Amino acid sequence: MSPSWQACIPLACLIVLGWGYAAVAQAPAPAAAGPTTAELKVALDTLWVAIAAFLVFFMNAGFGMLETGFCRQKNAVNVLAKNLIVFALATIAFWAIGFGLMFGDGNDFIGLSGFFLQGADNSPATGDAYKGVFSALSWAGVPLAAKFLFQLVFAGTAATIVSGAVAERIKFVDFLIFSLLLVGISYAITGHWIWGGGWLADMGFWDFAGSTVVHSVGGWAALMGAAFLGPRLGKYQDGQIVAIPGHNMSIATLGCLILWLGWFGFNPGSVMAADPNAITHIALTTNMAGAVGGIAATVTAWLYLGKPDLSMIINGILAGLVAVTAPCAYITIGSAFIIGLIAGVIVVFSVTFFDKIKIDDPVGATSVHLVCGIWGTLAVGLFAVGPGVYSWYGDGLGPAKGLFVGGGLGQFITQFIGVISVGGMTVLLSTIFWLVLKATLGIRVSRQEEIEGLDIGEHGMEAYSGFLKEAGSGGFAEPGSPKGMSQSGDLPTSL
Amino acid sequence: MSPSWQACIPLACLIVLGWGYAAVAQAPAPAAAGPTTAELKVALDTLWVAIAAFLVFFMNAGFGMLETGFCRQKNAVNVLAKNLIVFALATIAFWAIGFGLMFGDGNDFIGLSGFFLQGADNSPATGDAYKGVFSALSWAGVPLAAKFLFQLVFAGTAATIVSGAVAERIKFVDFLIFSLLLVGISYAITGHWIWGGGWLADMGFWDFAGSTVVHSVGGWAALMGAAFLGPRLGKYQDGQIVAIPGHNMSIATLGCLILWLGWFGFNPGSVMAADPNAITHIALTTNMAGAVGGIAATVTAWLYLGKPDLSMIINGILAGLVAVTAPCAYITIGSAFIIGLIAGVIVVFSVTFFDKIKIDDPVGATSVHLVCGIWGTLAVGLFAVGPGVYSWYGDGLGPAKGLFVGGGLGQFITQFIGVISVGGMTVLLSTIFWLVLKATLGIRVSRQEEIEGLDIGEHGMEAYSGFLKEAGSGGFAEPGSPKGMSQSGDLPTSL
Amino acid sequence: MSPSWQACIPLACLIVLGWGYAAVAQAPAPAAAGPTTAELKVALDTLWVAIAAFLVFFMNAGFGMLETGFCRQKNAVNVLAKNLIVFALATIAFWAIGFGLMFGDGNDFIGLSGFFLQGADNSPATGDAYKGVFSALSWAGVPLAAKFLFQLVFAGTAATIVSGAVAERIKFVDFLIFSLLLVGISYAITGHWIWGGGWLADMGFWDFAGSTVVHSVGGWAALMGAAFLGPRLGKYQDGQIVAIPGHNMSIATLGCLILWLGWFGFNPGSVMAADPNAITHIALTTNMAGAVGGIAATVTAWLYLGKPDLSMIINGILAGLVAVTAPCAYITIGSAFIIGLIAGVIVVFSVTFFDKIKIDDPVGATSVHLVCGIWGTLAVGLFAVGPGVYSWYGDGLGPAKGLFVGGGLGQFITQFIGVISVGGMTVLLSTIFWLVLKATLGIRVSRQEEIEGLDIGEHGMEAYSGFLKEAGSGGFAEPGSPKGMSQSGDLPTSL
Repeated sequence: MSPSWQACIPLACLIVLGWGYAAVAQAPAPAAAGPTTAELKVALDTLWVAIAAFLVFFMNAGFGMLETGFCRQKNAVNVLAKNLIVFALATIAFWAIGFGLMFGDGNDFIGLSGFFLQGADNSPATGDAYKGVFSALSWAGVPLAAKFLFQLVFAGTAATIVSGAVAERIKFVDFLIFSLLLVGISYAITGHWIWGGGWLADMGFWDFAGSTVVHSVGGWAALMGAAFLGPRLGKYQDGQIVAIPGHNMSIATLGCLILWLGWFGFNPGSVMAADPNAITHIALTTNMAGAVGGIAATVTAWLYLGKPDLSMIINGILAGLVAVTAPCAYITIGSAFIIGLIAGVIVVFSVTFFDKIKIDDPVGATSVHLVCGIWGTLAVGLFAVGPGVYSWYGDGLGPAKGLFVGGGLGQFITQFIGVISVGGMTVLLSTIFWLVLKATLGIRVSRQEEIEGLDIGEHGMEAYSGFLKEAGSGGFAEPGSPKGMSQSGDLPTSL
Repeated sequence: MSPSWQACIPLACLIVLGWGYAAVAQAPAPAAAGPTTAELKVALDTLWVAIAAFLVFFMNAGFGMLETGFCRQKNAVNVLAKNLIVFALATIAFWAIGFGLMFGDGNDFIGLSGFFLQGADNSPATGDAYKGVFSALSWAGVPLAAKFLFQLVFAGTAATIVSGAVAERIKFVDFLIFSLLLVGISYAITGHWIWGGGWLADMGFWDFAGSTVVHSVGGWAALMGAAFLGPRLGKYQDGQIVAIPGHNMSIATLGCLILWLGWFGFNPGSVMAADPNAITHIALTTNMAGAVGGIAATVTAWLYLGKPDLSMIINGILAGLVAVTAPCAYITIGSAFIIGLIAGVIVVFSVTFFDKIKIDDPVGATSVHLVCGIWGTLAVGLFAVGPGVYSWYGDGLGPAKGLFVGGGLGQFITQFIGVISVGGMTVLLSTIFWLVLKATLGIRVSRQEEIEGLDIGEHGMEAYSGFLKEAGSGGFAEPGSPKGMSQSGDLPTSL
Repeated sequence: MSPSWQACIPLACLIVLGWGYAAVAQAPAPAAAGPTTAELKVALDTLWVAIAAFLVFFMNAGFGMLETGFCRQKNAVNVLAKNLIVFALATIAFWAIGFGLMFGDGNDFIGLSGFFLQGADNSPATGDAYKGVFSALSWAGVPLAAKFLFQLVFAGTAATIVSGAVAERIKFVDFLIFSLLLVGISYAITGHWIWGGGWLADMGFWDFAGSTVVHSVGGWAALMGAAFLGPRLGKYQDGQIVAIPGHNMSIATLGCLILWLGWFGFNPGSVMAADPNAITHIALTTNMAGAVGGIAATVTAWLYLGKPDLSMIINGILAGLVAVTAPCAYITIGSAFIIGLIAGVIVVFSVTFFDKIKIDDPVGATSVHLVCGIWGTLAVGLFAVGPGVYSWYGDGLGPAKGLFVGGGLGQFITQFIGVISVGGMTVLLSTIFWLVLKATLGIRVSRQEEIEGLDIGEHGMEAYSGFLKEAGSGGFAEPGSPKGMSQSGDLPTSL
């Protein structure tokens, strides 16, 4: 592995030198005497896009804390390291390849220009209109750098979703490579179909902020990863499902609240212009679905599992937020209530379902992002109010009226086609990625390493040095496994 | 309990169906050819209101981390669950009832329209002017959704304050119901008097960002809760006050810093318009009071308790921030210094005082929010510079000159009346709520459950699985209580 | 000590009374009939400056979590307390003295007006132009309060950097005093040379967002502190470097992500105007350098130390962010890639280097902030594209073309002079501060207190009450040191 890593460094430098100057060729604008209202609008729109992007970026902290808290302490460093570096990798992959494939000029299936941010602003998807989202709200004036920044933080999210489902048993290097491939290629291609002016956009498929583009894509990739890896040791024993409790519910809850905050950038930010009515309406539908999702999951867990399980409250909130992501701009607050309610109920049963079919997803990422991502995408076809109701939602600028609010089945069918095609493509590509990795590097750590924890095995350190831990904590104790003492005293000098 | 929960689900759906269509009737505006400066101002104002609301929303994470960190690990899941779900509940309660009672058309005592966000924007409080705050800064143009979003995150804060004071012994379900009642009814009614154009607003009572509207209301409700619940087991033993140290000062400190950040939305956001002078002046008075409050509490604790206690630094900062919340727009930075200084000193003695009268408030919420909320509200009458000094503070748009800066006693007396009446009403209503809950469901967990921790008893899980904990940690050890091993190994399968 | 503290309180009140009224004399502006585009621009610029300032403020939470997580649990309260109160102290010091010394009217070496924010807005540095940064982007219209707010959060950062390097052995009171002196005097003086229109600005030295002004200044002060304090007990034993692992990698990682978020305020915020092209370009260069820094450090640590060390991923990201801080507005994204790459490699070797020369810096602050701060400042002379390429970067408004993009050595030499002079001055002043503190109060805690942990010794409390900890955890066990039980049961009543 190390020789290939070493090869990357000069390669990267060569690439960089190639267009280090090319990029300089951006035309300098003469400083204007005083701002016009059009200039002010561009500044205001850009400011909003940038701030929303920062909020979405912060979701990396949310995912990191959520996933780490839901896993065992012996794997905490590994989960943290994955969540920290994944956005760095996404930055490189999306800049070099992904953004071009997704938003560059090309055809209905793939973009073919704008790699390394060269000249991409002439593309129909980033230039005059941003199909699949709003055309009425002109995105054209915002600088290309703003468009890339906003899309980058979204791309990063997709990879982060995978991290949770494959936690506690995947090799570190495989996760890194898979993330590069997912963000650089798979996410970008299916994203092009919808937000890049591709065939699903042409067909009238609408996904406002990414229930499908981001969440279900991340969810499918996560599902395939969890399936190919197999369950953690001791998870399914003697026909029973063994609960493996997370080690830090405080940071998991913090993670959930950071994600909730980030969603105020994710959904309202997808207006990509400072339209006051659109932004605040979307903030309300988003918040309502998250709130009701949390309450619904609490009640469902209380009735069904006997206790208001904190991890279910957390997953219920996220379920509602994921579900409302596609329809948030097209629905009433009341519909957001119902969408969140259903998402909160679904997620509890989905978690149980995946355990029954022995797909071991330590954090419930598949239930939250895949299942509720699909639900939310379909919900567009059920609850969209139709054009002409909201100021930002004119003819041809959004989905047709949904089935439950007086429309027909048409939009629902289109949404269904989108869900299936994006899902199929993502399953196909991520299966290829996982299988190639499995055949070459191997994707799962050794049995011994899994028992001892990936922190020592993969990173040579532990997350909570100085604290005493339980022997074989986390549902799996093998004869001869480490005793109640942590190993920090025995660690080699790590610096 | 479960039947009543089950009944809620169809009920909620019925309500939603009732106006799912009604809400659609919002008039669509034709897309303007190019923005006017008036349109840009609305966009800019809305953007600021929305971003400030997001910051205030994030205070839920701050309260959650602060309160959890200050409690014992055996109750951490419970405190986290309460803090997480309380904003979800506040969303429902404030949308269905609270916002209408607070800002709807009605009389001087209560609003009576605008429930479920239907038609409330015609109300004097949300329409032309937002009495009790600023009239000069027109709030009229901002969309109703923005107004609701901003007010919702404030309402959520009030409920969160209660959470800390009743921690480690309250039944989960009682806290949920109390939060609904507080946000939906009590907070909304007293809020109407001040920010909804009610009788206190008419009288000239001024509370810029809510030292009284939010903090002392939350504080009074918290005080009554702590009083009706009684102290935690082992807190007052043999005439002695037993310190029950919190279990995680790292997240408590993080919580404090998140709250400090949130206050930059809370106070400057209450301008509810992007007035550059007002926003940044208020950011400075807010920050100054928080900073000086922290330093004053540190010094006071050092002199009085012998050590610079971290929990006192935290509470001192919050004390200063709470105190400056009412006067932040009406005072000089120098006055903010003095207000924060006094708050920081008060809070240390207040914590000791409540312990002396055996009101057991695990996180000091009463001292911070109630005592310093009162102090800050009165400080308006002492330090307000009077109209005409700041550009945003013209005649009739704020309090009269304060006693210590050359004015009379008049404003102070009005502030005092406001403090007493809001306090009286909140004590009355929250007493009713607590007593009804006590008589029906019972508000306190069993002795056995309290000793073992609410996490197992109420939620069937623990916060820090895999770590070894002390036997009977937290000031109360009973013969036969759990040994030094945590119970995670014995937990039933929770999913 | 306590008498001097007591003396501060009335003193502070006297100072406050002195200009409590003076500050009132700000001219009230009559409310405009409708906004002009110029007014809207001021509002928009101010909004951006304020929001960026809030993000930078939040970096206090980032530093707090990062430093605490990297230290041992027995010192966690102390590290948290330092990081929490340091911004409060910075607020006072920068308001009273620092802002005036840095931005007030004066000469090329020091500002001499504007103390306590009185009349400073007439200064050349805060008025018409803000030398050292951009002149084209008018900063003149933004209120003085916004300028102060933004500069204050930067000043606070410098003090926070010191906190990590001196952790686990410094007396609490010495850190407080040193912070006051650093922010109030040393940082302000060297800052005046560059951002306050001083001699380095006149000479053509450019540091866009503070690789030198903030980071290397903090780094030099940290280095001197670490040197004068000497290493922690047990760090260098028998000619070997003993790894002392941090106690909480979860919060350390959270801290890193909060800092990364904060940097989107730090660098793009330094535009100090809502210029859409500048802000988003800088966001991209910043993000790219951080991302590549993280990846480069991971790879370097993997090759060099054998494992992808999480603390190196964290420090690599921060190294890239620190390095790009000076050049972020003047370079292409490709150059940001290379600058981050080199920073990520440097930081791994730097950490090892400081350990070899027995400078014990528990969190690597010197390597990140000093070494990469210097690298980034010099990188301006290597990679700056030169005036006229970007719209915001005209003649006389930024550095000359850098050596590696077709320019000469001139800019590099100027940058080098700036690095040396600022470094020399900071070393001189901080040496004086540390030596005076050492001679009077003593700067290091007792051997016994260091072994037992500063939390008990300095603050009378522990961070993680209720958890069992290892005996003598953290690389140093002395015969007779505390056993595996924490001392919380023995603590005196702390409230």
